[in-house]
Amino acid sequence: MESNMIKKADRLNSVSEYYFSKKLREVDQLIQQGKPVINIAIGSPDLNPSKEVIDALHEAMVLPKVNQYQSYKGIPALRESMANFYQNFYEVALNSNEEILPLMGSKEGIMQISLAFLNKGNQVLIPNPGYPTYTSVTNLVEAKPLFYNLNEEENWLPNFNEIEKNDLSNVKLMWINYPHMPTGATATLKNFEKIISFAKKHQILVVNDNPYSFILNENPLSILQVDGAKEIAIELNSLSKSFNMAGWRVGMVVGNSEFMNTILQVKSNMDSGMFLGIQKGAIAALNLSNNWFNELNATYLRRREILWKIFDLLDCVYQKEAVGLFVWGKLPSEIKCENFTDQLLYENNIFITPGTVFGSNGEGYIRASLCVSEAILEEVLQRLIEAKK
Amino acid sequence: MESNMIKKADRLNSVSEYYFSKKLREVDQLIQQGKPVINIAIGSPDLNPSKEVIDALHEAMVLPKVNQYQSYKGIPALRESMANFYQNFYEVALNSNEEILPLMGSKEGIMQISLAFLNKGNQVLIPNPGYPTYTSVTNLVEAKPLFYNLNEEENWLPNFNEIEKNDLSNVKLMWINYPHMPTGATATLKNFEKIISFAKKHQILVVNDNPYSFILNENPLSILQVDGAKEIAIELNSLSKSFNMAGWRVGMVVGNSEFMNTILQVKSNMDSGMFLGIQKGAIAALNLSNNWFNELNATYLRRREILWKIFDLLDCVYQKEAVGLFVWGKLPSEIKCENFTDQLLYENNIFITPGTVFGSNGEGYIRASLCVSEAILEEVLQRLIEAKK
Repeated sequence: MESNMIKKADRLNSVSEYYFSKKLREVDQLIQQGKPVINIAIGSPDLNPSKEVIDALHEAMVLPKVNQYQSYKGIPALRESMANFYQNFYEVALNSNEEILPLMGSKEGIMQISLAFLNKGNQVLIPNPGYPTYTSVTNLVEAKPLFYNLNEEENWLPNFNEIEKNDLSNVKLMWINYPHMPTGATATLKNFEKIISFAKKHQILVVNDNPYSFILNENPLSILQVDGAKEIAIELNSLSKSFNMAGWRVGMVVGNSEFMNTILQVKSNMDSGMFLGIQKGAIAALNLSNNWFNELNATYLRRREILWKIFDLLDCVYQKEAVGLFVWGKLPSEIKCENFTDQLLYENNIFITPGTVFGSNGEGYIRASLCVSEAILEEVLQRLIEAKK
Repeated sequence: MESNMIKKADRLNSVSEYYFSKKLREVDQLIQQGKPVINIAIGSPDLNPSKEVIDALHEAMVLPKVNQYQSYKGIPALRESMANFYQNFYEVALNSNEEILPLMGSKEGIMQISLAFLNKGNQVLIPNPGYPTYTSVTNLVEAKPLFYNLNEEENWLPNFNEIEKNDLSNVKLMWINYPHMPTGATATLKNFEKIISFAKKHQILVVNDNPYSFILNENPLSILQVDGAKEIAIELNSLSKSFNMAGWRVGMVVGNSEFMNTILQVKSNMDSGMFLGIQKGAIAALNLSNNWFNELNATYLRRREILWKIFDLLDCVYQKEAVGLFVWGKLPSEIKCENFTDQLLYENNIFITPGTVFGSNGEGYIRASLCVSEAILEEVLQRLIEAKK
């Protein structure tokens, strides 16, 4: 009945199923078998957006044209809110008409930027460890990942001496992601300056993926704060984590107008504009004051205290100055992290992420999420205390 | 200040700005100069969705996890509603777990299907005239358009004798779109059978883009009604026109599970799942009875009567049996359609679409939209009556 003759495109041969989707199927099966599995692996914010955001969506539904196609670039008020947000929280001045492009989530931006700038065979610098989508999208557009190592000794920052041992003449794009997922490492302005000068030297477009800068981070930075950064760098940002709106699908890409127009050429052929109700909700979120982040982080602080205790019980070492939505911990011994997390799953019914999901340099580490209530984290803690007895 | 060194990808050299975006900027300028321009060019439904749809969105906003990431495949209830919709309105049985993939609009599906099945250099059969996105997406994935002619004498249906004069060995995919935009032509089940047997003979994946089948159409058809169609064909469908939800971004691709999984491999790397509130609204829409379409079409019927009078005044000939959201008319003389529409714009302040937007075979035709109120259409009519005096 099914066709064997119509073959999928070659680009799909390099893309395999995401670890999480396979593992989550197994977790679901365990739960269906009656196992009381607690999932502390996934970074999908469980807290609600601000009431203003929900109200704005409800109120939008009576607006004229709310059900009609929207502009690819979003309504001007959305781009203006994004410009104000960058001004207020990063002190970066952006022209809301030319230097901001709203996206249906920053994940969509990874594909659109890759289609906009990469030819088949171009190389792309990708952090190891890092977000797996950089690699799968690079493969999907038939460019080639050139992984650069990050390690704890160098605070998970790129080592340019090591990178420059490669022939970089075919490298077109570099993904960076500070605050860094999964490790929670931050880059200083000085670090960003070094990245920008490396990029200028080699004429490599740098994209900083910046969704985590407001979570447990005293000093949110944008790479565009570096003088002259706009010549060579763009930035992705997202409302998913900052405003608990992951399911709403709102992000943005910002940078010079030439780069934005190139991305828009791709985007306008791939989708249509964002639902007006969602745009209105996003505007309400972006207009929130610093209080929003203070309250959000108070919750995450309390949760992190418990996660730290959990990591202590697991004999995992973590950096207290790490930021973002996760705790990243070094395993005590030479045990393989996937064996460690499988043991936790099968013996203690606790699902946590092995570091190798993010690349080979994640070996020896695990990642746990702050998107879990204190009550549930306390339950995890109790289980581990019981198990130790 | 801006970079000249970072070049855009080669794939963008073949994609130019969409006619409408350029022309709409000119229309906006005319309006700002005080010209009373009436736009009857664009197919963005101006009527509202059913009250149930809006209610479902409002009600969804208190659901657990409404703000969190959703599954790439949508919630099961959404896929089940889509399966029921195909069963009830097309008598096509689909397995809701395996043969349906919800999309953020069917436009996004054009890119995802192209990335899933096309290698660089593959050829793609594209209708002339037809929806311009088939061509631009084909170019973006570096495949090659092979246009096939449609003409009025053959009721805008593909002529396979003519198509087979080409070497088809490198053709991987064929876009069809019945009911056809811009002409409003329909395909019968017999026509679909011919398309399927052509596709099987040459092992070409057929995609029927089917967003118009409920607008002014007595007999909605799906290409999957043809016996054995699932082996070689998939179908895009959309809630944009059928349920006045263009801005919501909900569509679907349906077909055999192997094809769906291949598309999902692309989609899961490009975006995340659809906002739950939108999914709930979509479910409410898909569950509406036939009455919904009867009422919707009563409005479009009244509008079409006026548009027909407008076309009569313009000495344009149209097919009364055409369906869909537009009226397509043949110009009276050898005048170039863009000259004709420019004249209407500059002399009568009426903006209408020249047929060449949809390809060279659109020369000599114009397209007007039913997404305009009767009052505004009457105003257009009066203007033309005045102008004739």
